[in-house]
Amino acid sequence: MKRNDAQSDIDRRTLISTLAVLPTLSAPFLSVSAQAQTATTNDPLPSWNDGPAKQAIIAFVTETTDQSSPRFVPPARRIAEFDQDGTLWVEHPLYTQVVYCLDRVGVVAKEKPELKDREPFRTVLSGDREAIAKLSMKDIFEIVLVTQSGMTVEDFRADVRNWLATAKHPRWNRPYTELVYQPMLEVLRYMRANGYKTFIATGGSSGFVREYSDPIYGIPPEQVAGTEQSFKYGYDREQRPILTREPKLVLNNMEAGKIENFWLMYGHRPRAAFGNSSSDDQQMLEYVKAGRDSRLSGLVVHDDATREYAYGPALGLPDTGVGTLSQAMYDMATKQGWLIISMKNDWKRIFSFEPGAS
Amino acid sequence: MKRNDAQSDIDRRTLISTLAVLPTLSAPFLSVSAQAQTATTNDPLPSWNDGPAKQAIIAFVTETTDQSSPRFVPPARRIAEFDQDGTLWVEHPLYTQVVYCLDRVGVVAKEKPELKDREPFRTVLSGDREAIAKLSMKDIFEIVLVTQSGMTVEDFRADVRNWLATAKHPRWNRPYTELVYQPMLEVLRYMRANGYKTFIATGGSSGFVREYSDPIYGIPPEQVAGTEQSFKYGYDREQRPILTREPKLVLNNMEAGKIENFWLMYGHRPRAAFGNSSSDDQQMLEYVKAGRDSRLSGLVVHDDATREYAYGPALGLPDTGVGTLSQAMYDMATKQGWLIISMKNDWKRIFSFEPGAS
Repeated sequence: MKRNDAQSDIDRRTLISTLAVLPTLSAPFLSVSAQAQTATTNDPLPSWNDGPAKQAIIAFVTETTDQSSPRFVPPARRIAEFDQDGTLWVEHPLYTQVVYCLDRVGVVAKEKPELKDREPFRTVLSGDREAIAKLSMKDIFEIVLVTQSGMTVEDFRADVRNWLATAKHPRWNRPYTELVYQPMLEVLRYMRANGYKTFIATGGSSGFVREYSDPIYGIPPEQVAGTEQSFKYGYDREQRPILTREPKLVLNNMEAGKIENFWLMYGHRPRAAFGNSSSDDQQMLEYVKAGRDSRLSGLVVHDDATREYAYGPALGLPDTGVGTLSQAMYDMATKQGWLIISMKNDWKRIFSFEPGAS
Repeated sequence: MKRNDAQSDIDRRTLISTLAVLPTLSAPFLSVSAQAQTATTNDPLPSWNDGPAKQAIIAFVTETTDQSSPRFVPPARRIAEFDQDGTLWVEHPLYTQVVYCLDRVGVVAKEKPELKDREPFRTVLSGDREAIAKLSMKDIFEIVLVTQSGMTVEDFRADVRNWLATAKHPRWNRPYTELVYQPMLEVLRYMRANGYKTFIATGGSSGFVREYSDPIYGIPPEQVAGTEQSFKYGYDREQRPILTREPKLVLNNMEAGKIENFWLMYGHRPRAAFGNSSSDDQQMLEYVKAGRDSRLSGLVVHDDATREYAYGPALGLPDTGVGTLSQAMYDMATKQGWLIISMKNDWKRIFSFEPGAS
């Protein structure tokens, strides 16, 4: 979650400003209600309003999978890449994984008492929301590295799963794994049904997202690319080999890193990509769209303050610091012919649990 | 192809000692004759002699895919990892990719004349085989980084494909892509037919192997993990976004790195792994075998000097410096119950083109 650009100042100011201390309640783990629903019509995108966005997605899939089309793409090259936060699920008021890491500071401080007197951990432990809100992205990054290190990969997995089963989003009082966008689940399923292999490319940690990507999105762990720390090969007390998470950054999957690392890990320029954030997805969407033949770059615009959140500052929407969409990126999208997706206008419903949602 | 251990001295001595300057001849690109053959019997491994190795592979696949078996593995966890050099294709007298990089030194030196006076490039350009044979692994690594950098990812791909279409192995006078082990192609197909997802984990560069992994092994680019350099996002003269290969190592996929990076890229401890070399595959095979439930770690032993090559020094075989199998690793394999695969005894034929091969 590092930013190198001018957005950083904005982020520092507001990133944690709406931090909620989350209650620990039992909750169903990894609800798949949205996934389990089967379409009862022939409409592959029933949660989309009829309009240019829906038409463009269907046209793209149709023309790239119809063998008689001049834009036909062989199955092996049907690669689609999806940002997660703000594209597949809610990223406000704070990236879910950052909430997890802030929750972990208390646990880690018990194991390592020396952290209690060290910034930024002292501030987090103080519970002083105003002070926490002033933490820099560098601070947040250090918190992520420290709280996700020092354990085996198996222990980390178990901790993430336990947290996901109990943590709830402050606004909807539901597990984070229910706050996925129903229209995007339909895009994932529709593309897979047409031979596309779907990948997540996230600024978050691969190891975090992989714990729920398959049941929630239908995307297996091996198709999740994220920011990631290093793993160290070693042995436990019984001399069994183990992999331990280290507090060292190996892959930074933000900004240009998101497309550089996609090439590193998978060796493809995707045919389609979806994203929403200037700090995260701009190069990915630009690079995908610049490929030969038919390419689809989709930009999800958060312009629905009632049903979800509204933020920009593109289109005059408020700049809230998380998942910022700059006017410059929006202008690039328009100029290069990316698909603009308005949550307010293009999505009939946002979540599967909405009242009245079928 | 870096080594950190005591093998380095051996390698330095002998790695390039049998280097052949390869003729540039037209040749069929990416022959798939081996792949195209279909089994005419119900035997999934027709190129294997009946014996404990063949039985163990079939027993493993059967018990992990039979739903009534206590060792049943759900499809999503059927992950199998294969080393390439010496496990799926010939690695002697020299790793194929190193031959490619040495061939490229002349091309690169034309673009960058300053290399002509710089070691180790001066030695390679001299054509002095004795001097080339004395190059260290560090030298080789520098040659790999420099010769595979400075171009776009697309230009690199085109160059690799062109080289593969013309280069021939000095012993068999055939394209390198024909020198794949028919018994291992059968294992790949057999495992995939039973729901296993197959991956390559190579000490070579992902970008090199990905150019032929699908037609030769049936493994798509996104399932090839290798050593890799960084990619830099930028723009060409027409302001189109490009990715350029940089001479900077990001992932070292040798030794422990081979299993650390597998976790980094795919988030799995594989259920099965196959390898052959102490410098490359020991930790991968140890870690896979140490997993819970049924796991298969297969060690390919090069003990057939007549049909392929014989090298060790395990089992008293000669130490030739490429793909070394140490006695310590062989003892570990025996102690931990890895599957020992003797090319001489377990393989009915090695290549699809062998006289008499069906």
